[in-house]
Amino acid sequence: MPDGGFGSDHLPYGVFRPAGGGPRVGVRLGDAVIDLAGLSPDGAPGGVFEAPTLNPFLRCGRDVWDAVRDSVRAAAESGADTVALGEVELLCPLDPPDYVDFYSSIEHATNLGRMFRPDSEPLLPNWRHLPVGYHGRSASVVAGGTPVRRPLGQRPPGPDGRDPSYGPSARLDFELELGFVTGDGPALGTPMPISEWRERIFGVCLVNDWSARDLQRWEYQPLGPFLSKSFATSVGHWITPLEALEPHRVDAPPQDPEPFEYLRLDEPAAYDIELEVALAPAGGGEAVISRTNARGLYWTMAQQLAHASINGAAIRAGDLYASGTISGAQPGSYGSLIELTWGGRDPVAVDGGERTFLEDGDTVVLRGRAGTIELGEVAGTIQPAPSFP
Amino acid sequence: MPDGGFGSDHLPYGVFRPAGGGPRVGVRLGDAVIDLAGLSPDGAPGGVFEAPTLNPFLRCGRDVWDAVRDSVRAAAESGADTVALGEVELLCPLDPPDYVDFYSSIEHATNLGRMFRPDSEPLLPNWRHLPVGYHGRSASVVAGGTPVRRPLGQRPPGPDGRDPSYGPSARLDFELELGFVTGDGPALGTPMPISEWRERIFGVCLVNDWSARDLQRWEYQPLGPFLSKSFATSVGHWITPLEALEPHRVDAPPQDPEPFEYLRLDEPAAYDIELEVALAPAGGGEAVISRTNARGLYWTMAQQLAHASINGAAIRAGDLYASGTISGAQPGSYGSLIELTWGGRDPVAVDGGERTFLEDGDTVVLRGRAGTIELGEVAGTIQPAPSFP
Repeated sequence: MPDGGFGSDHLPYGVFRPAGGGPRVGVRLGDAVIDLAGLSPDGAPGGVFEAPTLNPFLRCGRDVWDAVRDSVRAAAESGADTVALGEVELLCPLDPPDYVDFYSSIEHATNLGRMFRPDSEPLLPNWRHLPVGYHGRSASVVAGGTPVRRPLGQRPPGPDGRDPSYGPSARLDFELELGFVTGDGPALGTPMPISEWRERIFGVCLVNDWSARDLQRWEYQPLGPFLSKSFATSVGHWITPLEALEPHRVDAPPQDPEPFEYLRLDEPAAYDIELEVALAPAGGGEAVISRTNARGLYWTMAQQLAHASINGAAIRAGDLYASGTISGAQPGSYGSLIELTWGGRDPVAVDGGERTFLEDGDTVVLRGRAGTIELGEVAGTIQPAPSFP
Repeated sequence: MPDGGFGSDHLPYGVFRPAGGGPRVGVRLGDAVIDLAGLSPDGAPGGVFEAPTLNPFLRCGRDVWDAVRDSVRAAAESGADTVALGEVELLCPLDPPDYVDFYSSIEHATNLGRMFRPDSEPLLPNWRHLPVGYHGRSASVVAGGTPVRRPLGQRPPGPDGRDPSYGPSARLDFELELGFVTGDGPALGTPMPISEWRERIFGVCLVNDWSARDLQRWEYQPLGPFLSKSFATSVGHWITPLEALEPHRVDAPPQDPEPFEYLRLDEPAAYDIELEVALAPAGGGEAVISRTNARGLYWTMAQQLAHASINGAAIRAGDLYASGTISGAQPGSYGSLIELTWGGRDPVAVDGGERTFLEDGDTVVLRGRAGTIELGEVAGTIQPAPSFP
């Protein structure tokens, strides 16, 4: 793949700190970064690139994003000054004012329904009518590479009627997701028409929505997941602009029933992005344990954003929306360990052993690829739980 | 009540804009405000009071909060310069990095369980073991007085098997809650010991967690409330410091079973705050439709914060945590219309008519009082839903 998936057709945005300098926005080109604060591309207001996150740039909106991308592409193709990745520190590009996580894969929702509610219909009656979602914790959004500490919490009573217990999660899991980041949307009280989706969405990144399945099972009724998700959410260092994915925009799967008008769109709104998950034990080599594709998601990003806004909730620059776990129809295409091992029943093979759920020292890596575009990978290594009464 | 509940024993913090000036932090004294940017109280770093929210001040932490309160109290008692409330514009004091809503009233949780899950035990098995909570939308936190637009969304299928419908919520409700605001807590990965609660919590305010019951019933399984809550959350203009409530700190109700150690505290952690809800139709007078007290909450603020942090989730300055609807044991003490009218079955009397759920033009006012302290009231008037396909 030319430039390792980071050629001049890609040009994703991130935040980095050069040796001895303050944080600034950069664009990745091959194994190097173009310093936008130094480049001063056409159309951008002063100062937006000397910032610890992409939020000031995201606040500029679509016209500025387009002008800057044109300017950066021209610079990239004519040999811009770059700094080698090895000479800079990459920071988390996002500080989302709000973070929403959806549940958009019908295969994932069906699998979890089977496991969490074995005595009823796996897909709940609302699922095909709206993109189910919930708010996550913005403070826990970290960049790939940040270690993830195993969370403490309450674990459910055993089948023998024992009391719930307290301690480190024993069923720590990853979730393979695709996230998107927005500019500002309509103000509070005004829904966003779905047709505006490509105006409002800046770009995408991989997301690992780490999950503690034992905490989740015990806490999630009736108000949804809370501590089982809020301890860490890892995102890629590089936000891929929507334009870079234009050649890979495809039709989403058909929907039945037809959704309400506010969720209808007459254009392709899915993305053909191949995804994989690799797992490496401490000191071991990695094994790819899942392969799937984002194009199979039942609910599109456009629908997710239009739904989140239909009640008048404001969309703010930097907001992060994630797809929910992306699972395909086959066991080897599931996007979480709880599905891959079917609740821990069928371990998956890893280097030198097998896994039901994550062990301390395990590293999970999410990867995504669309033609010549490589999404920024998201890695995370599990650290032991803290000691706490 | 001396100074209308805003005497020198109270001194709550807010944000205001003087005529022709920028936003700044102030302290309310009677019907006036002390401009902290002008006062420059001892102990505060420069600039924290020339800010559009309390967040910079909240970031300073307990020692600075204490020093500033001492300094402001001395100024208040010796006749500080003040600006009349009528001459300033009050702004929303909060811009919470994260907003969490709990479900801490056993009476409320039991009532809602009866209505939402009539065929099963109203209180779920986890409820007495942990403070159930979920994340809300930070972008929708607004100050009291901000109009609340009736949300659009999907309403559940009828009992006759009709399809779900789309349109304005027909079951718009309020929720009477007590919120608290924090400074910074331990960093990501480190739980906060419950003993630190008064170190970390800055103060409290009333919260109206507006709710669309029809949207909620349809969307909330399995990931919890989303659009039914995320359209607006109103908070008081004045944040009452925890110290002002010291004389009203009382024992919380007994808990059975005894909670896990991380939720145990050997000191009074409830607050004796009388609460009321008034409702006024457009052009009509107000009727008090509920009276209750915050001291009856099963889970305390200390427990809510310790629980939210036990998995290592970071606490950031300005975070808002709300109690969940506060209901007493008697029908006239319920903190929401869905409970007061028992799902719309028993209308409540208002000036010139009756209500099951809120109508356009209705104004809801939350009030709270602890001895000589009056919490900042939270009012909101319902505006019609926007027209949208």
